[in-house]
Parts: sequence; C-alpha cells; structure tokens
Amino acid sequence: MAKNIKMARINENYLKLKAGYLFPEIGRRVREFQKASPGADIIRMGIGDVTLPLAPAVIKAFHEGVDHQAGQGTFKGYGPEQGYEFLREAIADHEYRQKGVKIGIDEIYISDGSKCDTGNILEIFSENNTIAVQDPVYPVYVDSSVMGGRTGILGNDGYYDKLIYMPCTADNNFIPAIPEKKADIIFLCYPNNPTGTTLPKDQLKKWVEYARKNHSIILYDAAYEAYISDPEIPHSIYEIEGAREVAIEFRSFSKTAGFTGTRCAYIVIPENLMAYTENGEAKPLHPLWMRRHTTKFNGVSYPVQKAAAAIYTPEGKKQVREIIQYYMENARIMRENLTQTGFKVFGGVNAPYVWITLGGKHKSWDLFDKILHEAHVVCTPGSGFGPSGEGFLRFSAFASKENVVSAMKRLQSVKF
Amino acid sequence: MAKNIKMARINENYLKLKAGYLFPEIGRRVREFQKASPGADIIRMGIGDVTLPLAPAVIKAFHEGVDHQAGQGTFKGYGPEQGYEFLREAIADHEYRQKGVKIGIDEIYISDGSKCDTGNILEIFSENNTIAVQDPVYPVYVDSSVMGGRTGILGNDGYYDKLIYMPCTADNNFIPAIPEKKADIIFLCYPNNPTGTTLPKDQLKKWVEYARKNHSIILYDAAYEAYISDPEIPHSIYEIEGAREVAIEFRSFSKTAGFTGTRCAYIVIPENLMAYTENGEAKPLHPLWMRRHTTKFNGVSYPVQKAAAAIYTPEGKKQVREIIQYYMENARIMRENLTQTGFKVFGGVNAPYVWITLGGKHKSWDLFDKILHEAHVVCTPGSGFGPSGEGFLRFSAFASKENVVSAMKRLQSVKF
Repeated sequence: MAKNIKMARINENYLKLKAGYLFPEIGRRVREFQKASPGADIIRMGIGDVTLPLAPAVIKAFHEGVDHQAGQGTFKGYGPEQGYEFLREAIADHEYRQKGVKIGIDEIYISDGSKCDTGNILEIFSENNTIAVQDPVYPVYVDSSVMGGRTGILGNDGYYDKLIYMPCTADNNFIPAIPEKKADIIFLCYPNNPTGTTLPKDQLKKWVEYARKNHSIILYDAAYEAYISDPEIPHSIYEIEGAREVAIEFRSFSKTAGFTGTRCAYIVIPENLMAYTENGEAKPLHPLWMRRHTTKFNGVSYPVQKAAAAIYTPEGKKQVREIIQYYMENARIMRENLTQTGFKVFGGVNAPYVWITLGGKHKSWDLFDKILHEAHVVCTPGSGFGPSGEGFLRFSAFASKENVVSAMKRLQSVKF
Repeated sequence: MAKNIKMARINENYLKLKAGYLFPEIGRRVREFQKASPGADIIRMGIGDVTLPLAPAVIKAFHEGVDHQAGQGTFKGYGPEQGYEFLREAIADHEYRQKGVKIGIDEIYISDGSKCDTGNILEIFSENNTIAVQDPVYPVYVDSSVMGGRTGILGNDGYYDKLIYMPCTADNNFIPAIPEKKADIIFLCYPNNPTGTTLPKDQLKKWVEYARKNHSIILYDAAYEAYISDPEIPHSIYEIEGAREVAIEFRSFSKTAGFTGTRCAYIVIPENLMAYTENGEAKPLHPLWMRRHTTKFNGVSYPVQKAAAAIYTPEGKKQVREIIQYYMENARIMRENLTQTGFKVFGGVNAPYVWITLGGKHKSWDLFDKILHEAHVVCTPGSGFGPSGEGFLRFSAFASKENVVSAMKRLQSVKF
C-alpha cells in the first residue's frame, strides 16, 4: 500500500502492547500438565475471582428488580447514566457518611466495573501527563496507559518508556517511595492486588501531601477495601484530610459482594477536584467525567443496581460480611501453612491475596511449575505483574475452605 | 497558576464540546409550562425510550440467570469479556446465518450498549482519520469524535471543524451524497435516528464500494433493524457483498427487545477487516478491538446475557415481534394523522420514529413550543440533532396506543 494514499488508520499505540501473556500462559501450562497427567486433581488458586454465590438478600432484590421489568408501571427504560439515586444514596451513607467521610451523592458514578473505570478515566486527562504505577501492578493501569498514547515503547527490561514504575518489594515493605521524577497521575491500589499488602494512614497521607504540592492526581483503587479488618488501615483515601482536592476513588461490588459476573462498581469524583489546562487554568474534573460518562455510557442494568443496593440492608450487610470472613479464614489458613512450608509470606491479613517468596534464588515461573507438577495446585507467578514481582507467587483466598486445606497439605510435602 | 509548573492536565478536547443542550432544554421548557398550567395532562413523545415491559420469555430467562447466581455450582464469576458463547452463537445463527449472512461467533462482541460501542470504537483508530457523519445525527458519534481529538472547534454554523457533515434532507430523500472530501471513517445509521428513514440496498452498496475504493471504514449503526418490514431494505450491512472488508456493525437489544434499562448490545468486527498504519501496512482490526474490549471491559452481567438469549427462543421471538408491531401500529397512526394535520411526514414505516415538517418557514423550536402549549404534547425539535434538522420535529412511537391516539387528536385541533 503506497504511503501517500489516504486511508483509515489504526491507533498505533496498540502495537506497543505486550501480548496478553500471564493468564493465557498459565492456561497453556495447566492444559499441558493435564494432558500428561490426566488423573491429577488440580486445585486452582490462581485467578482473583470469587467463588461463593451471591448473598440471599442480594438475590431477593435482584429478582424484585427483574419483576419490575415485567410490569407496566414498574418497568424501567433508560435510567440516569450516573446510576439510580437509591444506590448512590446508600453508598454515600453506608460507605462514607457513617464512617465520617463526606461524599455527596452527585460525586458518585455507578458503573459496570472498576476495570472499565480505571481504564476509561485516563480519557479525561491530556496525553502529556506522566503516569506512575506500582510495580508489581494490576495490568489494566499499564495497558490502558499504553493504548491511550501515554507511554513510550516497551523495553527489554519489561518497563514501558515514559511510565514511572514504583517498586514495591519486601525491602520497602511494599510501600512505594515517592518517585524522583515528577508524576502527574499516580495509580495506587490498596489493599493491593497482587501483593495483598496495605498502606497505613501515615503513609497514605504522604501521598496526598505529595499530590497537593505537585498538583498531581491520585487514582486510588480501593476495590478490596471490604477485606480490611485492621482499624488503622484506611478504607477510603478521603479519610485523609485534603484528599478531596487530589484523588479519585474506585470501588467495586465485585470482591465486596461477589459481583464479578453480575457487574457493578462506582467511582468517586469530588466536586472540588481540579486539573489544569496547558495554560495553567484550573478546571474541575467532575463535569468532564459527567460528560464522558453520559456520552459514552448508558447506566448499569436496573435489576443489577437493585441487587447492589441490597448489600446495605441489615441482612445484606450481615451476609456479605460472612462471605468475606469465609475468604479471610482461607487467607489465614494459607498464611500459616505457607509460612510453615518455608515461604516468606506477605499480605492476606487485610486482603484476599497472599504473596509469597522463597527469596531471590527461585524464579516465579519455576516455582509455579514445581507447584503445578508436584502439588497439582495452580497459583499466579508474581513476575506476570511486573519485574518487581519476580521470585513471588500470588495465592488467592477465593476458593472453598476444603480446597485450601488440601492445597496447603499438598504443598507441605513438596521439597523446595 | 504559573505556566512552567508541571501539573496534572485535562484533555482539552472536552472544552470544545457544546453544552448538552437538547434534552435538558426540552425538560426546562416542559417544567416551565407545567408550572404555568398545573392541570395540563402532558403526553410525552420526545425521548426515544421504550415503554412496554420485557417479554415474558425474557423475564423467565432473566430470573433463571439470577437463580444461577444463588447456587454453588451454577454461580458465574468473571465470564468471557466478549460474551458467553450461548449468546454469541444465538446471534450468529438467528441474526445472520439464517438470513444468509456468514458471521462467525468470534466476530461478535457482547457489550452493555451501542452508545458505549459507537463511542469506544474510535479508540482503536488514529486521531488523524477524517470522520464523516450524517446531518441530522445521533449526537454520540459527534461528541465522541470531539472528546477523542478527532475534530476542530465548533463553528457558529453549528458544525465542528474537520468533521465531514453529510446533509440528509427531504431534497435528497434523506440519502446522503458521497462526500467531496475523502472520509476515512463514516458513521451510517439505518434505520435512521432521528429521521426514521432507511437506505435501500442499491444505495448502501454505493457506500460499500466507496469504502472499498478509498480504504475507508463504515461504522454501521443498525440498532433499529428489528423495525424493518420492507424486504428490500437491508437489516445488516453484511448483506452487501464485500462489506466484511470495510464495515463494523452495531446492534442492540435496547430497541429490539426493550433492553434500554436492562443493557445488552453487540458489535460485529469481521476477522478480515483491515485498517492501516501511517506507513500503509494493513492491520486487522479484530485483534485491536479484542485487546480494547478485554482490557477496558469485563463482560455483560450473566443474568442479562441469559435474558438476551431468550429473544431467540420460539416464544421469545413471537413476543418480541408483537411488541415491535405494537410500536409500529403507533407509527402508522402517527403517520396518517400527522399527514392529515398538514405535515409532510417521513420515516415511521421501517423505524419507530416519524420525522415531520411544515416546510422551511417554521423553526423546530417554535413548532415544539406551539405543540407543547396548545396540544400539551412533547416531541423533539429536529434542529437539536444538527443544522439540517431545522424545521423538523421527531415523534417517537414508543408510547401507549391510547396516548398516541389522544396526542394525534389534540394536534388536529392546533392551527399551524
């Protein structure tokens, strides 16, 4: 094709993307092992997906929502793109007001997932911002940055040019250092996926101070906040004074209430949160996101919103709490057993992920293969989340207790 | 704020957007009238939102899907981002294969709405493409183009710079002429919103030929295809030979089956559809969209996909057909009565919208006000959809027959 003929052209930033490697590669290795050992009873603790059914109170409300769609007079067509007020009001009250944090219902946007929100949010920011991510990292932040032209190319070291990576390792207790180069937009994920670690209030305060001083924006992914039990760990970045002026918060019903296949989440954009034009003029982000959300999204399914609101009823709260305790009991069993097996164990106290290592001498994929072949257990190699994850494995607490106990028993008989 | 301090910057393309004017302005005028005439019984035929409940077969499947989410063993967590195979297979079969069009199930991506899809699709294309839209136009195509930096600024004439507008008026029978300037990406919407008109096969063929010759991509929005009864009008652009190499098709359950508040749609990207790098290298679009869809989206709610698939059962098909016939009977009543009232009437035969005018001397908003004040009926001013809509009004068939009959009676007593 001659260069001078005008034609429809692709977004070439997509060509910079690394091939989707981690989960397809896990799948490939598991299938290969299965083929070689057809009788093996494989226990999967790799993917971060919930396993318990929706709570009864949620199911009841979900059915009611469906019934409304069957009746003249109760049928709902297009709803408000930002979500029904009954759900936004319940969130503002139960997630924020009752915990002493003031978030208005107009600052909450209901969406169909945090993956969508954390990917789409970059659209309201200029391509020229410098973005900082934790390393290891939930891959969506990086891939969305690449697609939107906010990075350079991928280096042989596994790092994209122009992106700031903040290593989170055992050496710094998984607390990233303030980057030397100025970061305009900072993704922070706490409780952290994949490491399962958390950020104490005094550390989060440092980030808010940094952002205020540097006119940066923090994109705070708190999708796992429901797993926090330690009262010293903040659930919301807005517990930190001044955060309303520098932070957007992402929350989800996926892990809080088992909505991974049902789809509901939300984003908080405070009305006084500002970013700037190239000329330095301050502009509120709230109307920009409102425009994005109302133009390119049409609201979450009405019965799903009804279902989500039910987690704030007294029965819903109790049932959801029990489900989380079930998973966290799994995490406790994993922590104890993996420690006994000889691993250094991190996370799993205020998060459903346990992050383990035998120290520098074992590579993630080697450990993964050994565990798959000798214990018939699938986990996730830490190196798949970024170079600083090398040597680590992620175990997920989203499994049946029975499977967790069996998996741990099997691991104790492997010689590492 | 000093210009030389680095800070988080906004996407300034958003500042080019015209304020959301049309529906808020309609709301303002209706409220004002209501305040002045509190007893008036207002009939709303403005917004293009369905009014009849979901079909019984759909409700049944929706409840079954919810029940699956309640049970260990049937519970669904994360599903495939591109949608469950049971739904993609039903679509490939009933919407395409049975109509002689070959679309593979891997060419179908389930989403939560055509608004999202038509907005998001531009992400996989370079900013440098020249985009063509019909005038009048569904505003999302334009606004998404503006947000993504694919236009210049808005002129006083109501047109954005760098965007190609293709007038669709009574003079050209609402069939756009091939633009003089080369268009790389062409949005075509048929049956058309807002005009309710359609494109015969020979005319659609000209567009496919144009796109093939010019290496352009057609974004074909067929959200209203279920309203077509004339066998000469194509339901899918893929009925045209060679369209697989130049077109992406958008379909939705919103208007087909009343899913505006339930949310389910799909997009078809043929595997042999190509666009180009700046160097002229052909690249398939399918893997680009796969990457976008799997990175920034997490699939449609499982019970909603179950509900959507039910429209392809024998009962579902029959029930959905009856709902469409109900609306189309409304359209017939509207067409007849509005013609008698003295309007020139377009559309409403293979689409649920009727597009009317009294000729050039009456402005859209003047007609809107007169009808609101004298007949207490709300419609949509055509000028809100673009400059070529001036002088027209859109009436929607999504209403109860009783209301349609009353509204038409009232209009006959207004002196235009």
